[in-house]
Amino acid sequence: MNTIPDKQAIIDAHERIKPYIHRTPVMTSESINSVAGCSVFFKCENLQNVGAFKARGAMNATLSLSAEERAKGVATHSSGNHAQALARAAKILGTRSYIVMPRTAPEIKKKGVIGYGGEIFECEPTLQARETTLKEVIKKTGATEIHPFNNYDVMTGQATAAKELFEEVNDLDYIIAPVGGGGLLSGISLATKFFSPKTIVLAGEPAGADDAFRSMQSGKIETSQANTIADGLLTSLGDKTFPIIRENVKEIITVTDQEIIDAMRIVWERLKLVVETSGTVPFAALLKAKEKLKGKRVGVIFSGGNVDLEKIGKLFAQG
Amino acid sequence: MNTIPDKQAIIDAHERIKPYIHRTPVMTSESINSVAGCSVFFKCENLQNVGAFKARGAMNATLSLSAEERAKGVATHSSGNHAQALARAAKILGTRSYIVMPRTAPEIKKKGVIGYGGEIFECEPTLQARETTLKEVIKKTGATEIHPFNNYDVMTGQATAAKELFEEVNDLDYIIAPVGGGGLLSGISLATKFFSPKTIVLAGEPAGADDAFRSMQSGKIETSQANTIADGLLTSLGDKTFPIIRENVKEIITVTDQEIIDAMRIVWERLKLVVETSGTVPFAALLKAKEKLKGKRVGVIFSGGNVDLEKIGKLFAQG
Repeated sequence: MNTIPDKQAIIDAHERIKPYIHRTPVMTSESINSVAGCSVFFKCENLQNVGAFKARGAMNATLSLSAEERAKGVATHSSGNHAQALARAAKILGTRSYIVMPRTAPEIKKKGVIGYGGEIFECEPTLQARETTLKEVIKKTGATEIHPFNNYDVMTGQATAAKELFEEVNDLDYIIAPVGGGGLLSGISLATKFFSPKTIVLAGEPAGADDAFRSMQSGKIETSQANTIADGLLTSLGDKTFPIIRENVKEIITVTDQEIIDAMRIVWERLKLVVETSGTVPFAALLKAKEKLKGKRVGVIFSGGNVDLEKIGKLFAQG
Repeated sequence: MNTIPDKQAIIDAHERIKPYIHRTPVMTSESINSVAGCSVFFKCENLQNVGAFKARGAMNATLSLSAEERAKGVATHSSGNHAQALARAAKILGTRSYIVMPRTAPEIKKKGVIGYGGEIFECEPTLQARETTLKEVIKKTGATEIHPFNNYDVMTGQATAAKELFEEVNDLDYIIAPVGGGGLLSGISLATKFFSPKTIVLAGEPAGADDAFRSMQSGKIETSQANTIADGLLTSLGDKTFPIIRENVKEIITVTDQEIIDAMRIVWERLKLVVETSGTVPFAALLKAKEKLKGKRVGVIFSGGNVDLEKIGKLFAQG
């Protein structure tokens, strides 16, 4: 797809991917509502296949290829949830996936990709090395690149998470998503425009990687020296995601690592859900904007639940 | 209720408590199934009100009182989930709850009870002190004692968790519950007898508090010097729960603390659910009995999700 997705594109994508993804539950908690001072509806994409919303976009993009393209496989560079999501989509659809990963990527991420039959190509941990290696892989294999976020089919797939939320919960005053490269946020913001136009879209972003926040201010794509525990939100916006976000997102709220940890503790203890640091950023943003959201109905996207329990255990063990 | 509950009693209890409890989801995971070698259906009572199945029994028992009894309030001694569950039931039904707790009980448990309007009476941390204090409180207030497990109305309430599971999942070969005092296990085993008689009932018990395991062997209620991280399963069976368990439970499988931690890690990482140590015991038992359960359909009760993240964090941080 070469143009910004419209309403029908999101409806079509949803039909297309339905057989291959979970319709994740929407959870609520009286105890959380009393802490937050508003009615919160959590869309639990941490319970999605591969543990993250990324299953939606990767599946939609792979399903949207022509038969000829699909036969040659799909490729990407990613050390995160998109890598597993793409490998899974390829496996289910009977084709191959080629994943470029920095050699420093955690073993568990590599194992996840291999578990779905993905082929890993290791490279130096720089953006340049990743891009060069990906180009070589594509030249050799004829595979189609599926970018983790700067891709309209991916974005349209991610939009379906909000579509499902609006189908279940009426009259949301706000919806809050996290922002890294902006694939989820742009998709969510389009779905809101088409399916729940009165709902205001907010985003949460780690203060230690606040490039999207600054991009909204300057009007051009900014980069940042990312330094945050929310390791799924380090990338900058893309030229396809930024214009959509700029038009449809009201405000980006930045949160510190401590605010993320505090929010994560509330979620784990009260909702009994494992949500990753990056996935908790929208709820941390909600708590930060409590005054403004008082008494409102707020949708929050829990984007993923893939955690390294040893690392997270240390955060909690410190009290 | 003064007799062992029959089928109709469980059906009535379910109707009675429905407005006040969650119908908790049943979750499955391909990844868990491949680790376990069988098809596992998790009944998620960790997502129940107050974070545990105890909400069912406490609510059923309180609703089963006469109007006169109910007006005088309910009382119990408990430092665990039953205390909160009873305080919540009383609050919802507009009456008072009197909870005897050892003065050493964690602050968070006390706060939970107070949050539901319960009145706490502190005592020395011995069973004798708890019982004496409870008698005094009852004498003074006229409240009715609702025992955490050795009570047919409580047991009947807990049974409804299995009834719901059987309504959603057909043809379970096995169902596995944890066993402490036996309120849940006796209820589950009765529900199985009435609603899914071909299903075999198993129980998981910590090896460090294996009194139920030994009771099944000796034919009389045994006690144990409890020493396990599964701190919700320390008590011995009661004279109402043991006969039912003896008749309807096929086998009690004991698991070590390390096996509990390993199982808990799998649940948190793959299902993205926070389940407490005691709540994970049935799944640890399943993994231990893998060979026997191979290829079968197995229901597992996740009994609760109330954890102290600082403590659990330390367990995980050690790798």
